Amino acid sequence: MTLPVKPAVLGLSGERFQVRYQITGTEEEARSLAQTACVEQSVEFPAELVPEGDIRDSIMGRLETFEPAGARRYLATISFAVETAGAEFPQLLNLLWGTGSFFPGFRVDRITLPPSLLANYRGPRFGAAGLRQRVNVYDRPLLCTAIKPLGLSPQHLADMAYACALGGMDIIKDDHALCDQPFCRFEQRVTLCAQAVARANEQTGLACLYVANVTAPAHEILSRALFARAAGAGGLLLSPGLTGFDALRQVADDDRVGLPILSHPTATGHCVVHPDHGFSHYVFYGQMHRLAGADASIYIHQGGRFQVRAEDCVAARDGCRDEMGPLRPIMPLPGGGMTRERIADLKAMYGHEVIFLVGGGLHRMGPDLAENVRQLIQSVR
Amino acid sequence: MTLPVKPAVLGLSGERFQVRYQITGTEEEARSLAQTACVEQSVEFPAELVPEGDIRDSIMGRLETFEPAGARRYLATISFAVETAGAEFPQLLNLLWGTGSFFPGFRVDRITLPPSLLANYRGPRFGAAGLRQRVNVYDRPLLCTAIKPLGLSPQHLADMAYACALGGMDIIKDDHALCDQPFCRFEQRVTLCAQAVARANEQTGLACLYVANVTAPAHEILSRALFARAAGAGGLLLSPGLTGFDALRQVADDDRVGLPILSHPTATGHCVVHPDHGFSHYVFYGQMHRLAGADASIYIHQGGRFQVRAEDCVAARDGCRDEMGPLRPIMPLPGGGMTRERIADLKAMYGHEVIFLVGGGLHRMGPDLAENVRQLIQSVR
Repeated sequence: MTLPVKPAVLGLSGERFQVRYQITGTEEEARSLAQTACVEQSVEFPAELVPEGDIRDSIMGRLETFEPAGARRYLATISFAVETAGAEFPQLLNLLWGTGSFFPGFRVDRITLPPSLLANYRGPRFGAAGLRQRVNVYDRPLLCTAIKPLGLSPQHLADMAYACALGGMDIIKDDHALCDQPFCRFEQRVTLCAQAVARANEQTGLACLYVANVTAPAHEILSRALFARAAGAGGLLLSPGLTGFDALRQVADDDRVGLPILSHPTATGHCVVHPDHGFSHYVFYGQMHRLAGADASIYIHQGGRFQVRAEDCVAARDGCRDEMGPLRPIMPLPGGGMTRERIADLKAMYGHEVIFLVGGGLHRMGPDLAENVRQLIQSVR
Repeated sequence: MTLPVKPAVLGLSGERFQVRYQITGTEEEARSLAQTACVEQSVEFPAELVPEGDIRDSIMGRLETFEPAGARRYLATISFAVETAGAEFPQLLNLLWGTGSFFPGFRVDRITLPPSLLANYRGPRFGAAGLRQRVNVYDRPLLCTAIKPLGLSPQHLADMAYACALGGMDIIKDDHALCDQPFCRFEQRVTLCAQAVARANEQTGLACLYVANVTAPAHEILSRALFARAAGAGGLLLSPGLTGFDALRQVADDDRVGLPILSHPTATGHCVVHPDHGFSHYVFYGQMHRLAGADASIYIHQGGRFQVRAEDCVAARDGCRDEMGPLRPIMPLPGGGMTRERIADLKAMYGHEVIFLVGGGLHRMGPDLAENVRQLIQSVR
């Protein structure tokens, strides 16, 4: 008893989703890798032994197009039967990246999902427009800052959040390294910070959001999200590089939570920094975040303390905004060494529908945080 | 109200854990990046503004050693206060990789955790010795195969598992692409495969393990693991590249599950294939898997259909086996294009304490799977 002797009939819909890969090498190498990937990313089986019928014709990846894209670069579009992904995000990731991740010169450039597959994803609950509504600011880009450094007490962080909110900051998020440390407990931090921002909002009449980091051990993420909601947090921060993308999806989908979600890019550098390998910014910070249900996607902007190409920032922006069936556009949230001086350039690249993250740069402006925020808001207008 | 005016006192234990980074560049560049990483991986704050006292002295990473390691390569050991990691695996990952992941030429080479930090991790429940005990084979390396290709029905996969178990296979795992597809439902597949292997074991008197893939959406991983256990599976397969490492840790820690866990490397290529960036195999397939509680770590072996360096395979092997406080050694599980012809070489590199994964190669030997397995076992002896 080994492989089927009759052609397999699986009752497939015939619908397929497409993954466009960028492949680096000679045309012969690229073409060969594209063919290999059709097998590797689906049946992962000796090609000559793949059973006849639906398995060979439909379950196996199919090379749809292959075209040159610059020196030693090719774009190959491979399609897969929607049924191979089931209704599961981890398996979709497996099909599009999977063991192909071990091929040098192999990069996920773009994904195109048909309505039947997109229907499995709730997507961003708020999206760019819903997030703006929560913040109640419509005439300029939004501003976000982080309370830090790690080591400050919950009360100190809350005081810092209060000062920023008083100055008119739109979104104040926990630093991504704040989890549940003995010197700064999650519940106390979130409670005090949410209260501090609420107090400031009463004074200012604004609707600043305090965004609590709920990146946590797998079995605690949801309970922290629910705690944050009950404590009055206005949004949640999650780092899919630490928790996996589907943990973000789980929180975003949960109606009991129902808060905007910001995604943090920590521990995702290796997914995007190699121009020939990994993921395009378009897919990684745009499309995958929308599938997972983030409402804003933080990523590293060029010209800060990390080296990122301008074209990658543009790609991240477009991945957040471009039409993607019923999945709402989300806010691009460039950060990583932003300062007041750079806001004009940022506005040129991003226009209005963006959130600028100014973290350490806010403190460099001087000791009066509320005043610093006021100046920043002025610059953003 | 901004930063503390008095030196912060946090009641830290003084205990620190160490991360050795491999940094590529000139000595000046490498030294500068090492200094930057001390700040970036911990407080992520303008260095000149980091508050005095415990935050500057202890929370901030500390460069402990810096030494050359070949042409344009340096090893920098940075220590962090154990309290910054709390008792949370995602935060440990954040500290050791985090936003440093965006620095080219930055690679996690080795981690050294003191007993107080290791005490937060249960680690492998079975480990190499416990897994061997389950399989009840002591005098040779173990053999593992995968049932595939994707597209076969649950009954067909079960028949395949039966044939392999009858031939004397030690471990039969689901292909990593088998999740819960409309043409092959999880519950039916796992039930039939577990029954088939149990039936074969009755006939052979052997203790072959059927390992069910429970890689799934975040909210379903644990329920699938419990289902698999109840259905008679002998072990579980999880892909941390798809679920995040802490999902694996959650399943491994759950006493209601209590099954050996094999980890699959799908979608982890970008973490390890760049010799100057990401993680060493030692850390990624060894140390991190032991922290997460895997009992066997599958990784790509050299000379198959992927390009991997021999030194990386040796590093993965050693990371699985070397002393790591109370965390048990686990089974290295090299795979990715293994064949009967290569077993002698594999034995030379790995000795006895290893599991060899032969997937597609088993089918290439001919249509009688039971007979193929008999021959493979013969070769391994």
